[in-house]
Amino acid sequence: MAKQKTTVGTINNETLAFTAGRDVELDQALITVDCIGTAAHVTMLSKMPLKPALITEAERKQVIEGLVEIIGLAQDNKFKIKLADQDVHLAVERTLTKKLGDLGKKIHTCRSRNDQVAVDLRLYAKEQILATLEEAAALVAALVSFGKKHEAVPMVGRTHMQPGMPSSVGLWATAHAESLLDDCVSLVNAYELNDQCPLGSAASYGVPLPIDRQLTSDLLGFSRPTHNVLYANNGRGKMENIVLSAMSQVMLTLSRLAQDFMLFTMPEFNYFLLPAEFCTGSSIMPQKQNPDVCELVRAKASRVKAAELGVYDLIKGSPTGYNRDLQEAKELFMEGMATTRACLRIVTPMIKATKVNAKALIDGFSPDVFATDRALELVGEGMPFRDAYHYIKENLHELESIDPVEAIQLKTHLGAPFGLDWDYFTDRTAAVKETVREERKVFNRAVTKLLGVGYPLA
Amino acid sequence: MAKQKTTVGTINNETLAFTAGRDVELDQALITVDCIGTAAHVTMLSKMPLKPALITEAERKQVIEGLVEIIGLAQDNKFKIKLADQDVHLAVERTLTKKLGDLGKKIHTCRSRNDQVAVDLRLYAKEQILATLEEAAALVAALVSFGKKHEAVPMVGRTHMQPGMPSSVGLWATAHAESLLDDCVSLVNAYELNDQCPLGSAASYGVPLPIDRQLTSDLLGFSRPTHNVLYANNGRGKMENIVLSAMSQVMLTLSRLAQDFMLFTMPEFNYFLLPAEFCTGSSIMPQKQNPDVCELVRAKASRVKAAELGVYDLIKGSPTGYNRDLQEAKELFMEGMATTRACLRIVTPMIKATKVNAKALIDGFSPDVFATDRALELVGEGMPFRDAYHYIKENLHELESIDPVEAIQLKTHLGAPFGLDWDYFTDRTAAVKETVREERKVFNRAVTKLLGVGYPLA
Amino acid sequence: MAKQKTTVGTINNETLAFTAGRDVELDQALITVDCIGTAAHVTMLSKMPLKPALITEAERKQVIEGLVEIIGLAQDNKFKIKLADQDVHLAVERTLTKKLGDLGKKIHTCRSRNDQVAVDLRLYAKEQILATLEEAAALVAALVSFGKKHEAVPMVGRTHMQPGMPSSVGLWATAHAESLLDDCVSLVNAYELNDQCPLGSAASYGVPLPIDRQLTSDLLGFSRPTHNVLYANNGRGKMENIVLSAMSQVMLTLSRLAQDFMLFTMPEFNYFLLPAEFCTGSSIMPQKQNPDVCELVRAKASRVKAAELGVYDLIKGSPTGYNRDLQEAKELFMEGMATTRACLRIVTPMIKATKVNAKALIDGFSPDVFATDRALELVGEGMPFRDAYHYIKENLHELESIDPVEAIQLKTHLGAPFGLDWDYFTDRTAAVKETVREERKVFNRAVTKLLGVGYPLA
Amino acid sequence: MAKQKTTVGTINNETLAFTAGRDVELDQALITVDCIGTAAHVTMLSKMPLKPALITEAERKQVIEGLVEIIGLAQDNKFKIKLADQDVHLAVERTLTKKLGDLGKKIHTCRSRNDQVAVDLRLYAKEQILATLEEAAALVAALVSFGKKHEAVPMVGRTHMQPGMPSSVGLWATAHAESLLDDCVSLVNAYELNDQCPLGSAASYGVPLPIDRQLTSDLLGFSRPTHNVLYANNGRGKMENIVLSAMSQVMLTLSRLAQDFMLFTMPEFNYFLLPAEFCTGSSIMPQKQNPDVCELVRAKASRVKAAELGVYDLIKGSPTGYNRDLQEAKELFMEGMATTRACLRIVTPMIKATKVNAKALIDGFSPDVFATDRALELVGEGMPFRDAYHYIKENLHELESIDPVEAIQLKTHLGAPFGLDWDYFTDRTAAVKETVREERKVFNRAVTKLLGVGYPLA
Repeated sequence: MAKQKTTVGTINNETLAFTAGRDVELDQALITVDCIGTAAHVTMLSKMPLKPALITEAERKQVIEGLVEIIGLAQDNKFKIKLADQDVHLAVERTLTKKLGDLGKKIHTCRSRNDQVAVDLRLYAKEQILATLEEAAALVAALVSFGKKHEAVPMVGRTHMQPGMPSSVGLWATAHAESLLDDCVSLVNAYELNDQCPLGSAASYGVPLPIDRQLTSDLLGFSRPTHNVLYANNGRGKMENIVLSAMSQVMLTLSRLAQDFMLFTMPEFNYFLLPAEFCTGSSIMPQKQNPDVCELVRAKASRVKAAELGVYDLIKGSPTGYNRDLQEAKELFMEGMATTRACLRIVTPMIKATKVNAKALIDGFSPDVFATDRALELVGEGMPFRDAYHYIKENLHELESIDPVEAIQLKTHLGAPFGLDWDYFTDRTAAVKETVREERKVFNRAVTKLLGVGYPLA
Repeated sequence: MAKQKTTVGTINNETLAFTAGRDVELDQALITVDCIGTAAHVTMLSKMPLKPALITEAERKQVIEGLVEIIGLAQDNKFKIKLADQDVHLAVERTLTKKLGDLGKKIHTCRSRNDQVAVDLRLYAKEQILATLEEAAALVAALVSFGKKHEAVPMVGRTHMQPGMPSSVGLWATAHAESLLDDCVSLVNAYELNDQCPLGSAASYGVPLPIDRQLTSDLLGFSRPTHNVLYANNGRGKMENIVLSAMSQVMLTLSRLAQDFMLFTMPEFNYFLLPAEFCTGSSIMPQKQNPDVCELVRAKASRVKAAELGVYDLIKGSPTGYNRDLQEAKELFMEGMATTRACLRIVTPMIKATKVNAKALIDGFSPDVFATDRALELVGEGMPFRDAYHYIKENLHELESIDPVEAIQLKTHLGAPFGLDWDYFTDRTAAVKETVREERKVFNRAVTKLLGVGYPLA
Repeated sequence: MAKQKTTVGTINNETLAFTAGRDVELDQALITVDCIGTAAHVTMLSKMPLKPALITEAERKQVIEGLVEIIGLAQDNKFKIKLADQDVHLAVERTLTKKLGDLGKKIHTCRSRNDQVAVDLRLYAKEQILATLEEAAALVAALVSFGKKHEAVPMVGRTHMQPGMPSSVGLWATAHAESLLDDCVSLVNAYELNDQCPLGSAASYGVPLPIDRQLTSDLLGFSRPTHNVLYANNGRGKMENIVLSAMSQVMLTLSRLAQDFMLFTMPEFNYFLLPAEFCTGSSIMPQKQNPDVCELVRAKASRVKAAELGVYDLIKGSPTGYNRDLQEAKELFMEGMATTRACLRIVTPMIKATKVNAKALIDGFSPDVFATDRALELVGEGMPFRDAYHYIKENLHELESIDPVEAIQLKTHLGAPFGLDWDYFTDRTAAVKETVREERKVFNRAVTKLLGVGYPLA
Repeated sequence: MAKQKTTVGTINNETLAFTAGRDVELDQALITVDCIGTAAHVTMLSKMPLKPALITEAERKQVIEGLVEIIGLAQDNKFKIKLADQDVHLAVERTLTKKLGDLGKKIHTCRSRNDQVAVDLRLYAKEQILATLEEAAALVAALVSFGKKHEAVPMVGRTHMQPGMPSSVGLWATAHAESLLDDCVSLVNAYELNDQCPLGSAASYGVPLPIDRQLTSDLLGFSRPTHNVLYANNGRGKMENIVLSAMSQVMLTLSRLAQDFMLFTMPEFNYFLLPAEFCTGSSIMPQKQNPDVCELVRAKASRVKAAELGVYDLIKGSPTGYNRDLQEAKELFMEGMATTRACLRIVTPMIKATKVNAKALIDGFSPDVFATDRALELVGEGMPFRDAYHYIKENLHELESIDPVEAIQLKTHLGAPFGLDWDYFTDRTAAVKETVREERKVFNRAVTKLLGVGYPLA
C-alpha cells in the first residue's frame, strides 16, 4: 500500500480514504465558516499579551486578506479540498502557508482541528437553523392563508380515520400551521443551545497560554463561549442531536400534512386537487398522476429521524474527549438539515397551488357525523350527557343530516372552526421572522467587523 | 368469545384485553391528574352561560368532593382501575356516577377521552419534568462539589481514548456538570412546550356549546391553552417525543459519565474507587466487584432513545385526528421519564461516595502527554507552531516529564483546569432549582383553589 | 442506606432495586427453562470423569427431583422470586440449597449466571419462535382461505394510493400471506442461529475442569453447542437482536395489512366490514365503530422495531465479555416476542370474521383503471408500447369501463389474480407447521429423558 | 417554474429535482443490472405465444446488442444518466429508442419501472451480499490465523470490563471469528430471501398478456420467481430491510472487535500494537497515533443500523402497492452495504498487521484473576462450590499468582482456550467461500447465455 504524505502525518492511501470518508466532499460547504473561525482565532492570537506578539497586527491583516480571498473562491465554488488535505481545515492552512510562508504555520497555535470542526459546525448550523425558520414561517403563512380562504368550507372531522364530527378546511390547515409554529419554538431552542462558541478548547483540555475565549466568541457573534473546555468538545454530537431532533419535529408535522394530502386527493375523497406540476406519472399506466412529493416528504421524515438516531447512537457511551466516531455525525447532520429544508421548500408552493373541492367536502358528510352535535342538543334540553349519548347510540338510524356549513358555524369557542384567532397565527409567524432577521444581523455585523469587508461578500 | 360490557361499548374479551394493553396498570399513576382535570372541566361547565345551568354550583361542589375522595384513595393506593373500565377516565366516571347518579353522567359533557388523556399526560409530564430537573440539579451539585474538591488533581486528558494533554479531575467532573446544565435547558424547553392546556378539543373538532378553554387552562395552572382544537389532539405523540428527546439528552450525559467511570475504575487505571455498595459480585468469580450501576446507566440510555424513536415512528405519517396508535406512546413515555429519573437518583450518591486516587492519576502521566505544552513553549521562543509541532514529532524521545500538578496550573484561561468559574456552575444550578420551585408553586396554588383543599393533600 | 444480604454479595437496597430492575418479574417466565438448564448441567457434572465424583448418580436424582418440584410450582404460578434473590438463578439455587443442603451448594460448580441466563433465554426463545411460527401459519391459512373465497372479487389495484390497474381481493389477501410465509423463513433462520447451546462458557472463559459441553447441548435437545466459549457470551444481545429482527418482519407485514384494513373500512371505500367485536367506540361520539385493533397493530410494529434497535444500540461497541448492559435486553426481547404473538393472535380471527362488500369493490372502478389494459390491447394490435401509452395518455377521456370481473380473469400468468397457485400457499404453510411439530418433539423428548418424567408436566 | 419534458411526463424542475433526489447519481451503479434485467424481459417477450410475435428473434438480438453496448459503456464509466431521464430505467429506454427506433418503444411492454427497480436492486444485492461474504471470510481467516499464532499467549479474560479469569489471545480472536461466521449465516439467509425474481409484477397487479415469469427468473439465474405479483412489489423495502439487518450483524461484530482494539492499544494495556499506517495523527498534539480506523468502524455500526431502521420506518404502515417512499430506501440500502464492505476490507489488513505484546499481556495478570480457578481446586478437594466461593471471597488476600501460561493450558474442554478446534473454523470459512463461488457461477453462466457474450464482459 502506497504511503500518502499529508499535512500532519503519514498513513497509507486505503486508511486515508477510509478515514476521510465523505469529509472532503462535505467540507466544501464549510469553507467559508472555517475561514471566519480562523479569522477570529488569528485576531485573538494577535491580541494575546505576549512579548513579542505571536502575530503582529500587520500579520493579522495579511492572514485576514488571505482568508477573504479563500471565502471569495469558495463563493464562486473555486476552492477545492483534496484528499491529501483530509479536510477543510488542513486545506485552508496549506493554502495560507503556501501564500504567507511562516506566518501560515503560526495560525494553528493554541488550536486543534477539533476546535475548528466544532466551531465550523456551530456556525454552519446557526445559518441552517435560521434558514429553516424562515422557510417554516413561509409555510405557516401559506397554510394560514389557505385556511383563512377556506374557513367556511366544511370537512368531515375524523378520528381513527373514521368520520367523527363536523370540522372545516380552515381548522385542518391551521392545525398544521400551529404544529409548525411549535416546531419553530423547538428550532429556536436548538439555535440557542447551539449559539455557544467552543473555540479555545484546543484538543479538549485548554492550553498553557493566555488565550481569550470570550474575545473569539464575541468576534464571531456568538451569544457566549461554552465554559468548560472539555465540555466544548463533549458537546459535539450532542449539539447535532439536539438540532436534528428539532428538525425531526418539523418533519413530523410535514409527514402528517403529506399523509392527509395523499388521503384527501384519492378519488374516493377528491377533497383537494394537487396541481399536475407536483405529480409524476407512471411508466406503464398512462392515466396516473401521483402525489410523489407527498410520499417523499413522508419518507424523508423517517430518514431525518434515523439520522438523529444514528448520531445519538454513535456517541452514546463514548468516553470523554474527542473520538473519531464524531466524524460520522457530520454527514447525518448536514443532510438532515438539508432534507428538512428541501421538504419545507417544496410543500409551500404545493399548498399555494392546491385547489379545494367544496362540493366533494360537503358531499362527504353523512348523518352520523352529527351524532355528537345531536347528543349535545339533548343535553341542552336537560338530558345528562351519558344518557343522551346512549340514546343516540341506540337510535342512530333516526339521525338526520344538518347543513354542515351551518353546523360548523356553531363551533365558536377558542380554537374551534369559527373560533380561530387569525392574529394569533400572524403574530407568531412575524415573531419567527423577526428572530431570523435579528440573528442574521448580529452575525453579519460581527463578521463584517472581523473581516473588514461587508459580509456576505458582494 | 364472551362479550364484555364496558361503560361505552360492547367488545369481546380478547379485543378488550388487546386494546387496553397495559393501560389499566399505567393509568394508576394518572388517577390524581385525571381527577384534577375533571375538576377543572366540571367547574368550567358550571360557569357556562346556559339557562338552566348545565351544572349548578352546588352540583359542582358535589363533584369536586367526589374527586377529592378519589384523589385521597389514589394517594393511599386504594383506587383500583378494572379491565372493564378500559382506562382511568371511565373508572372515574363510573365511580362518580355510582356515587352521584345523574350528576355523574353529566361530567363528560363537551369532552372526550382524547381530551382527558391529553390533559392527564401533560399534567403528569409537568411534574415529571420538574422532578427530573430537581434530580439533575442535585447531580450537578454533586459533580461540581467533586470537581472543586479535586480541582488540583491532575488527570491525563485523552482524545481517541489515547493520552493527549494534561487535564484535571476538576475539569473532567465539571464537563459532565455543564453537559447536564445544558440538558436542563432542553428539559425546560420541553416543559414550556408541554405547558399548554389541550382541554376543550373534545374529539379534536370542538363543540357547538360555549365552553371556555381559557378558563380550564387557568384553573389548571397552565401557562396557556393550545389554540387550534385539532392541533390540541395532533400535538399528542409530538409532545411525548419532545419530552423524551430532552430526557434522552440527560441519558446521553449520564451514559458518557458512566463510561468514564467504567474505564477509570479498571485496575489498569485505578483512578477512581467505586464504593462496594454500588457494585455487585459474580456468582462464580469470588473476587469480583463490578460497576453494574454504570453499565446499566449506559444501557438505559439506549432504551430511553429507543422509546423516543418508538413514539416518533408510531405517529410519523399518521393522518390528522386521534388515532389509537397513540396509546402505545403512553408506556414508552412514562417509562422513559421514570428510567431517566432512576438513573439520576442512583448516580448522584455514587459520585458522592467515589474516592479519588491521586497517586494513580499522577502516575498515569508519561512524557508524551506534555508534547503539546512543549511545542507551545517553542512557539513562545519564536518558532512557528507548525514547525514546533514537526520538531517535537521527530524528537518525541527527547521529551521529558513535567510535574503534572504544575502543568495544569498553567492552564488558566476561561474554562481551562485553572480557569473554571465555580460561580458559573452554582448560579446555573440555583436557577434550575428556582424554576422548579416556582412552577410547582403555580400548580399547587391553582389546584388548591380548584379543589378547595390544600394540595398536595396532607 | 440499609444493606441487603443477597446470596452472592452485599449491596445496598437502592443499588439492588436499580440493578435488579424488572428481572424479578420477568424471570417468572424463565423458571421452567432455568430448572431444565440446571438439570442438564448437574447431569453433566455427575458424568464428569473425576474421582470421587463431584455429584453422584443418587445426588443427581435428588437434584432433578427438586427441580421437577420447582417446575411444578412454576406451572401453578406458585414459585415466587424475591428481590433479595436478584434473579431466577439464585432463587432456584437458594431453594435447592434449603432443601438439599450441601448438595445445593454444588450445583453451580463450573457455571456462572451468565451461562444460565444465556441458556435460559435461548430455550425460552426456541419455544417463543415456534409458537410464533404456529400462529403465523394460522394467519396465513386464514388469509389464503379469505383470498380463495374472494378470488373472483375485483378490487382496484393501487400504487401511490391512487387507482392503478384491476386487481382482486384474492390477490390482495395472498400478497399478505406470501409476505408472512417469507417472514416464517426469517423466523426459522433466527431459530436455527438460536439453536446453539451456550452452556459451559462459565464466565466466558471456560474452566480448568473437564466439563462436557457437547453432552449438555445434547441433553437439552440443542442442535449443537456454540464453539468458542467467549463467543457463547458475546453472542448474547446478538441473538436477541436476530430474533427481534425476524419478529419485526412479521410486524411489518401485519402493520401493512392493518393499514389496508383501516383504509378499506372507511365509509368512502366500504370494501370490508370489520365486525363490531373488533371495534371500540368513542366516549363522546355515539356513532363510532373504530378499527382500534388495526391501529394498535400498526403502532406495535414501531414498538417491536424500537425494541430491536434498543437491543442493538446497547451492545454496539461494548467490549468483549459479559457486560451488565445485557440485562436491559431481556425486557425488550421478551416483550417484543410477546407483542408479535399477541398481534398474530388477534388478527387471525379478525380476518376470519371480516365481510367483503363485492358491490362496493366493483363500484370503485372507474374507466381510467383500465388504461393500461387498453394500452396493451393496442400493443396486441401492433402498436409499440410507448406509443400506445402516449396515445392513451392523450385520450384518457375516451376510455370506457370494462367489466372488472372479466378484466381480472384475463390476468392468468403466474402469480396474477387468476394465476395464483393455491397449493403453493398450502404447501408452504404445511411445511411451517411441520417444522414446529418436529422441533417441539425433539425438545420435549430430550427434556422427558433428562427429567425422567413426561414433559411438559401433566 | 420552468417545465421539464421527461420521457413519461411533464413536471416542473423543482419537483423533478426533489423527486429524483440522488437517484440519478445512485443509479449509475445499477446500469449493468438494469440492462441484464431488460435483456431477460425482452427475451421473454420474444418467446410470448402471440401472433405476430411482439418482438421477433432478430429484434431480440438487436436489443441485446444495444444492451451489451450500454453495459460496456457503464463498465468504462461512460454511460451517463441525466436528470431529465429521472432514473436509469428511462435512460436505458431512451438510449435504445434513439438507436433502435420503434423497437426501443416496445421493450417496456408488460413492465413497469417498479418491476425494474425491484429486479435491479435484487440483482445488485445478490452481488453485494456475495462480495460481503467473501470479505467476511477473509477477515475470519485473518482472525483465525492471528488466534492460532497467539494461541498460547495468555490474556486476562474480563467481564464488566473488570479482570475475571485467565483467557488467551487465541480465544479472544476466534470469538470474533465465530461471531462473523454466524453473521455469514445471516447473510446467506438474506441472500436466499433476496434470490427471488420479482419481474412480471408490472405495476403490482400483473397484465392480461401471457408473460412467462418463470422464464425471466430462469434467464436471470434466480432460484425462483416470487409468486403473488402484488407481493413482488410489497416485498420491496422488506427485502432491503432484511439485507441491512444481516449487514448490521456484521457491523455489530466489527464494532465490538474495534472497541477491544481501542481498549487494548491504550498505553495502560499495551496488549496490541496497531501499525502506524492504520493510525492518524493530531493537528495539535505531535505525539498522537490514534486508532481512527477502529473508532470509525464502531461509529459506522450505528450508521448501518440507522439505515436499516430508516428503511423499516418508511414502509411500516404503508398501504399495499408501490409507494414512492420506497425510493428513499435506495440510498440507505446501497450505502449500508457499501459501508459494511468498506469496514471489512480495512479491518482485515489491520488484523494482519497487528503486533501482540506477550509481555504486557502476562504482566496484566494479578492474583485475583485466579480466584475462580482456586475455588474450583477446592471443589476438587471436596468442598461444595458455593462454600469454596465464599471461602475465597473472604480470603482474597491469600490468593497467589499462578503462571498464566500454565493456567490456560488447563482449560481444554470444547471451545476453551486449549479446546479450540481449528478445523471448525477453517471448515466453516471454506463453506462460505464455496457458496460465493457457486452462486457467482450460476449467475455468470445465466447472463453469459442471455447476452450471448462472456460475462462479466472482458
